[in-house]
Amino acid sequence: MSALKGVKVVCVGQFYFAPYCSMLLARLGADVIKIEAPAGDPYRRLPTADAEGTSVQFSMLNSGKRALRLDLKNPAGREVLRQLAQTADVLIQNLAPGAMDRFGLGYEELHELNPRLIVASGTGFGSFGPYAGEPAMDLTIQARSAVMSTTGETDGPPLRTGPSVVDFMGGTHLVAGVLAALFQREHTGRGQHVEVALQDAILPSLTSNIAGMITSGGAMPERTGNRHGGLAVVPYNAYRTIDGWATILCPTQAHWERLTDVMQDPTTDDPRFADMAGRCAHDGDVDSIVGRWTATRTKDEISAVLAKANIPNAPVLTLGELVDDPHVRERGVLRHMSDDKGEWMTLGSPLFLSDSPLVEPSRARLLGADTRQILHDDLGMSDDQIDELYAAGAV
Amino acid sequence: MSALKGVKVVCVGQFYFAPYCSMLLARLGADVIKIEAPAGDPYRRLPTADAEGTSVQFSMLNSGKRALRLDLKNPAGREVLRQLAQTADVLIQNLAPGAMDRFGLGYEELHELNPRLIVASGTGFGSFGPYAGEPAMDLTIQARSAVMSTTGETDGPPLRTGPSVVDFMGGTHLVAGVLAALFQREHTGRGQHVEVALQDAILPSLTSNIAGMITSGGAMPERTGNRHGGLAVVPYNAYRTIDGWATILCPTQAHWERLTDVMQDPTTDDPRFADMAGRCAHDGDVDSIVGRWTATRTKDEISAVLAKANIPNAPVLTLGELVDDPHVRERGVLRHMSDDKGEWMTLGSPLFLSDSPLVEPSRARLLGADTRQILHDDLGMSDDQIDELYAAGAV
Repeated sequence: MSALKGVKVVCVGQFYFAPYCSMLLARLGADVIKIEAPAGDPYRRLPTADAEGTSVQFSMLNSGKRALRLDLKNPAGREVLRQLAQTADVLIQNLAPGAMDRFGLGYEELHELNPRLIVASGTGFGSFGPYAGEPAMDLTIQARSAVMSTTGETDGPPLRTGPSVVDFMGGTHLVAGVLAALFQREHTGRGQHVEVALQDAILPSLTSNIAGMITSGGAMPERTGNRHGGLAVVPYNAYRTIDGWATILCPTQAHWERLTDVMQDPTTDDPRFADMAGRCAHDGDVDSIVGRWTATRTKDEISAVLAKANIPNAPVLTLGELVDDPHVRERGVLRHMSDDKGEWMTLGSPLFLSDSPLVEPSRARLLGADTRQILHDDLGMSDDQIDELYAAGAV
Repeated sequence: MSALKGVKVVCVGQFYFAPYCSMLLARLGADVIKIEAPAGDPYRRLPTADAEGTSVQFSMLNSGKRALRLDLKNPAGREVLRQLAQTADVLIQNLAPGAMDRFGLGYEELHELNPRLIVASGTGFGSFGPYAGEPAMDLTIQARSAVMSTTGETDGPPLRTGPSVVDFMGGTHLVAGVLAALFQREHTGRGQHVEVALQDAILPSLTSNIAGMITSGGAMPERTGNRHGGLAVVPYNAYRTIDGWATILCPTQAHWERLTDVMQDPTTDDPRFADMAGRCAHDGDVDSIVGRWTATRTKDEISAVLAKANIPNAPVLTLGELVDDPHVRERGVLRHMSDDKGEWMTLGSPLFLSDSPLVEPSRARLLGADTRQILHDDLGMSDDQIDELYAAGAV
């Protein structure tokens, strides 16, 4: 049995934000129909696309969904969406701000058609506030939310984070909003409008940075490279090894004493390094000593000896090492799949529910691959009606 | 009316992971009891703590919850938790892996006491796989999940992200898992075990990086500073201004042509910059030209002129600018509060539900401030029984 068995979701989503939301719902057992404009989700045809025009990114997030092509600029296309909204429990969308309203498919219209429908909207800045309606991209939200300002070396430029943390934080919050609304509907019988804005969704992760800035009166550097954000723990850094980098941190005096035992470097006896305050005042010298020790060892050697000494540490995995990591392989959030068309890769789910086993995804469908089946099975259209929609360019 | 009205949550949480999860549930209307060991959540007494021993971080995430002090190392303390579990709908915990089991308070034991209870566990690596049970911190998970490897300049070291993206991605997924289980319980009448691991939760945000690595056969650099991850869009960078940094990107030829119109720099006429392929091959030269233009302007000037020309851009806000930003102020995810003890700051919620208005949080309670009230009201204990628990050091 699945948590969301019987729940029908229509996702007018593109890029990562809404598609990640509907992907998690699919893994929990929802029936997800992905609706795409005639040109397809822009993330289908990235430079990583295969011969059939499906990129690895698209495949990772859109497996396990049915694919409907629909032109919302066509009145008959909009009518199809209205009919689908009447059969669905949830409609998720992250089109450009205001686009659904301009199509006459805003929350009020949809709610009138189906009072039980939950409508979930993902935008950059939300529906109110001075920037409401402005377009947004991962880079510009990272800039506007101080994610960049807090990332990088103290004397270097602000840096964006490599992973798309903004889009995925948005998608995860959106799924929480949808699930809360589904729960509430059990008691009220009514749907509602759920809104998540990217800038809002990333803001809580800056709690520590904001707290440090406020209580230091702005005296703390905005960014501290790989050092501790409050510069209050030393050593705390990434150190170069023979084959890459390793992180090591010593939050307490006991950790430091165990590390000096491991390193056996007489220069650690310097009284300047005797306590945490001294080490913080001389962080460059401490990092040099630790870096000298790591430089002649491999990541695995370092990890083995520090784990034994109970000192917090981790190798810095490259993307290739991550994909092949035995733990990542076994967890299956990154899934190596195989079907009659060959091998492919997709995402499972970080949500492990003991009573709702993961619904194993089938390969992402080609653009519009299920259009005829959905119009027939879900909306009860005849072949003639469906042919008419095709002839009108609505699907 | 609130989405989670009548839902009772017990949170044995510390740091950010579980507390963020229970905070979002509180904002949706759940009654949350935060349980702390006699020494308190380690995040209470950070260097940012006030005279009463409450840090800004703690205050931001633990407002709107009741506070119970409980020693789970004491048999009478464990008995109190068992009684609470019998009255609760959800129990959330992110103690060290295996700690709840060692206390005899693992999922099986709790499920036997209350088959409707949903137990949500947050850990670094989950309950299976080679690293199951290993401790984890934001820095070590960032290292082990390639967040660091993908962040930073191509020829510089891997860098951690400034915000605590790992902990908050974990907390957001955990709340989604809890809500899915609450919905499922409406149909099954049974609770279940929900598990989220930090390494799993951050992995989907690396979709783009993993796809690029695989399809390029490892030829793409792991990290590209502020440049486009696929090095396929130029300009795409953060540029120095008079008063900080500004991000500018030109995803299409039309954007570039509008930018050259704005900049009025004759060196852009160079045929090397005529199309995207040429600009990508000479990205350093293009960035120099754009940087020359931004260097003599302020962030606000740049933002105004580029918005008018419809060119994607954003100023890089500092933390101070973020806190004072008019949009951030109006959204209220970061909330500036005031009560009879003065001004304080907390988090609202990125979840905007039209039928479940935000439950306005009251100030975070002092350690154990509601212990007596909870034992009396929720568990029906007499004053004598409560005094005994205090005398035994259980509460």
